[in-house]
Amino acid sequence: MTYAERLAAVRAGMARQDLAVFLVPRADEHLGEYVPPSAERLAWLTGFTGSAGLAAVFATTAAVWSDGRYVLQLATETDPDLWQRLHITETPPPKFVADQAGEGARVGYDPWLMSEEQLARFAEAGITMVPVAQNPVDLAWQDRPPPPPAPALPYDAAYAGATSDEKRVRVAAILKAEKQDAAVISDPASIAWLLNIRGQDVGFTPLALGFAILHADAGVELFMDPAKLPPETRATLGNAVACAPREALPASLASLCGKRVRLDPVGSPVWFAERLRAAGAKLAPAPDPCLVPKSCKNAVEQQGARRAHLRDAAAMCRFLHWVETAAGHETELSASAKLLQFRAEGALFRGESFPAIAGAGEHGAIMHYRVTPQTDRAILPDELFLIDSGGQYLDGTTDVTRTIWTGPTLPTAEIRERFTRVLKGHIAIARLVFPEGVAGVRLDAFARAALWQVGLDFDHGTGHGVGSYLSVHEGPVSISPYLRPATVMEGMIISNEPGFYLPGAYGIRLENLVLVQRAAFEGAAKKFFYFETLTLAPFDRVLILPALLSSEERAWIDAYHARVLEEVGPHVPEEVRAWLVQACAALPG
Amino acid sequence: MTYAERLAAVRAGMARQDLAVFLVPRADEHLGEYVPPSAERLAWLTGFTGSAGLAAVFATTAAVWSDGRYVLQLATETDPDLWQRLHITETPPPKFVADQAGEGARVGYDPWLMSEEQLARFAEAGITMVPVAQNPVDLAWQDRPPPPPAPALPYDAAYAGATSDEKRVRVAAILKAEKQDAAVISDPASIAWLLNIRGQDVGFTPLALGFAILHADAGVELFMDPAKLPPETRATLGNAVACAPREALPASLASLCGKRVRLDPVGSPVWFAERLRAAGAKLAPAPDPCLVPKSCKNAVEQQGARRAHLRDAAAMCRFLHWVETAAGHETELSASAKLLQFRAEGALFRGESFPAIAGAGEHGAIMHYRVTPQTDRAILPDELFLIDSGGQYLDGTTDVTRTIWTGPTLPTAEIRERFTRVLKGHIAIARLVFPEGVAGVRLDAFARAALWQVGLDFDHGTGHGVGSYLSVHEGPVSISPYLRPATVMEGMIISNEPGFYLPGAYGIRLENLVLVQRAAFEGAAKKFFYFETLTLAPFDRVLILPALLSSEERAWIDAYHARVLEEVGPHVPEEVRAWLVQACAALPG
Repeated sequence: MTYAERLAAVRAGMARQDLAVFLVPRADEHLGEYVPPSAERLAWLTGFTGSAGLAAVFATTAAVWSDGRYVLQLATETDPDLWQRLHITETPPPKFVADQAGEGARVGYDPWLMSEEQLARFAEAGITMVPVAQNPVDLAWQDRPPPPPAPALPYDAAYAGATSDEKRVRVAAILKAEKQDAAVISDPASIAWLLNIRGQDVGFTPLALGFAILHADAGVELFMDPAKLPPETRATLGNAVACAPREALPASLASLCGKRVRLDPVGSPVWFAERLRAAGAKLAPAPDPCLVPKSCKNAVEQQGARRAHLRDAAAMCRFLHWVETAAGHETELSASAKLLQFRAEGALFRGESFPAIAGAGEHGAIMHYRVTPQTDRAILPDELFLIDSGGQYLDGTTDVTRTIWTGPTLPTAEIRERFTRVLKGHIAIARLVFPEGVAGVRLDAFARAALWQVGLDFDHGTGHGVGSYLSVHEGPVSISPYLRPATVMEGMIISNEPGFYLPGAYGIRLENLVLVQRAAFEGAAKKFFYFETLTLAPFDRVLILPALLSSEERAWIDAYHARVLEEVGPHVPEEVRAWLVQACAALPG
Repeated sequence: MTYAERLAAVRAGMARQDLAVFLVPRADEHLGEYVPPSAERLAWLTGFTGSAGLAAVFATTAAVWSDGRYVLQLATETDPDLWQRLHITETPPPKFVADQAGEGARVGYDPWLMSEEQLARFAEAGITMVPVAQNPVDLAWQDRPPPPPAPALPYDAAYAGATSDEKRVRVAAILKAEKQDAAVISDPASIAWLLNIRGQDVGFTPLALGFAILHADAGVELFMDPAKLPPETRATLGNAVACAPREALPASLASLCGKRVRLDPVGSPVWFAERLRAAGAKLAPAPDPCLVPKSCKNAVEQQGARRAHLRDAAAMCRFLHWVETAAGHETELSASAKLLQFRAEGALFRGESFPAIAGAGEHGAIMHYRVTPQTDRAILPDELFLIDSGGQYLDGTTDVTRTIWTGPTLPTAEIRERFTRVLKGHIAIARLVFPEGVAGVRLDAFARAALWQVGLDFDHGTGHGVGSYLSVHEGPVSISPYLRPATVMEGMIISNEPGFYLPGAYGIRLENLVLVQRAAFEGAAKKFFYFETLTLAPFDRVLILPALLSSEERAWIDAYHARVLEEVGPHVPEEVRAWLVQACAALPG
């Protein structure tokens, strides 16, 4: 089917349900970032394969949105004759749909694919929102893949640092303290953490798709295809976890009549709220109770993260050494494959934590560029090459970005200046000390101030939470311009990744992961934290303008490079170590 | 009446209305910061005279809250036998009242004294909120002062920079664009700005208390005691402004049946929402439409602010010279009077913009200390003296804080270090360049980072908006830890006032006002802004540790001092100018 035919088929389905508009978010029934092929409705309909987006199909027109990371990709992947391409913050969908559809228009949505909060934003714009019984995309999508069949396997408490019993009791105590009888958990990452299981239903994140109800007595009902639960997993789950197929979910929700049930209005499909209300349950809207405990890594997870990062650093340093001589005869794809090969040689490696973003030259300006055989491009001499990648290890998840100059001649003063300003932002975040209770939005501008000073900025957040052998993008915390209340807490792992992008020319991004640690101040009136940098790989010295750095910034970079050499040096081949000595030398005076 | 008798009388009134609890906010019917004596219910009931607070009277106990600025003052002014004293963010009143009162308890509130948003926070805590027909405090308060009788006088467009006609048309266009038929305006500062009038109903801010309804055709109904509107004011208001006594308000609201009426859910009393709903109007909850236009000063107001600040600077520099020799024979009160005298000698001076905070030694740690004959204290040698004060001038409002060392010996290294860290925060804010669309919360931490680095902080916001011959605390913008969406916009005047406080010992605060200006960057993708510092007065050089400053920070302070000398020098007597030359000298190398 062509994209025009797909649109026509969806419109036919809309007409049968008397819908003026139908909304197609990039989401599955768990509202997470990675979805199985069977849920790639937005990509099937529009061609856009980014990890965040929304389409609105009108009777004769259609619009598709994404965010700043995907502006260029959205324009490349979708047909302008079929789709109006829009920026999600510049042209908010609720207002756009309300204006285009006109008063009283029936706007259809799939209650499995939108949260209560998303729905409310459309309703607030004065739109009549209609839940569909059958998703018109699913009806039109003839060769839709089946749901993924992979098993859920036990995750050893030697990596998790706590047993599922301990975790269930701990989260149940949160419910009891807030006078809730049960909580719906629709996020498979929360289920994976809570039950110490890992699966392989989606790419790059070891999730087993399913739903759960956690009761205040620490018992769990797990709704997952029984074929996905082999005996060893059932044995590990134990008697406090009752397993049932997904078809049993409506009956279990109905049995919560009269109970206070916690449900995440942002992270869970509105289908649950509609069912629970119909069942006579009292809704307690609150974030997924696993979010915060999962994000605060325990001592075992912290030590695992350090070890995983050291192995990842050895792979990265081997790669950075290798790529020094790649210009002219390697490509974005071959470089990505080489980095994956280096990672795969490390212990406990289980795969990439997301598709590597390997952007040479102008491709570096596409913030979440994904190289394919169609877009692949040679890495040329004398240009910037941006590589953002990460690994899933049994003991931790990594995410690192470096931007290198391919040489052989020197980069321009402009490029060095902009690289150095991005680096100043990175160092400003890395050096922060801050008290307990600080929301990420309060730290974000430190990553930008050096760029702002000369009228530059970057159109993505500074940092996201990272899971422990789980999602590379993990809530609740972020360091971003958004006014989110989640505060930075001890044990969280967060990325520090300022950038600068000149569309059509180049991209710069410098990313380390940091671990939030307690800072000891004698007599301090409250808790203070600092960031322990986990990622170890040199920043390209030829791109740094030392004169732009303060003495504190210079001391930071020299100390960081000395640490990279000391910690990674023993774990790389001799020729890489020799290269590392140069790459980690102190900056010129 | 003793405070115990007042409490008993209020409890008697509560019993007659079958209330388990009654809430007494520090508020009048305009929910602003300054209230007339007739609305000082919280002070009458509890003794606490701070500008923000809340009391909850239970049958046998009672609690009173304020924020970090007032912790010490609250403890000093209220009787611990009668009042449990609480911190409003550490012990949020809704949860406290819900826990203490128990389920089903009737909690009374005066709908004229709470906003819809404040009410919602109590309702969300599960409390049964009951509006009272008669406020039990008003019933118990026998010698309550009458409402203020001062006239509302015209404010010359030569200062306002725009006629009321122009402003009404401009704000009405906002209503039309948002499809609103009318807006309720309950903030007298908005009315003063919109109608170009000024009054003297409350201290320190030239307000005439009243209410207004602005219609989408730019017509206004003004509800104000006719005795407050002399013929010259009525003539200036013109035919598009209909004046009526406040008693006409219910009928006018009733006539909005079927209309879409904009009402500020945060800034307006919930009484309006209750009346409008009962009248069958459609509520459009949105901020007061005057807030943003009022906060973005036009070119005439900006020029007025510069002129007012120069006159204020001359008074401040004369004062700082005078206070150099004050230790041992002057007091907080006599110093405040001296500063007022210097200000009063300047042109267009109309009074202080708030009660001067003159805190010597340990009084400096009381963030919003108000010196009284009872608390007055000598300014002693070898201590810190903090003075935070401001003036109302016809052409602008000022607010400045300096902290000086009284000598004659040198301050300790600890005091110099902390002063310098506060100064680093002040300079970090002053030097910021940032794009359009940045909420104040994103800038706040720059004022704190140097303190955070050593485990210190301050418990108040970094900056507040300032009006133009209007409120010294003006919305919507602030630079603070609160997640408020208002962004920093061109023409806003904002304070930059980091501090550090050691309770029982000393306080440090360094405050200038800054004006948001457009920064010109060739080819920039968006608008950028910088802060033009308006306030001109030297920082005490003996308290600065130059070694703690970066070269950029040192350059800023030297350039600032050079500017103070150049601009203020010609406007002060010769002996002050001679002192200023020393006070503004470059820092030692």
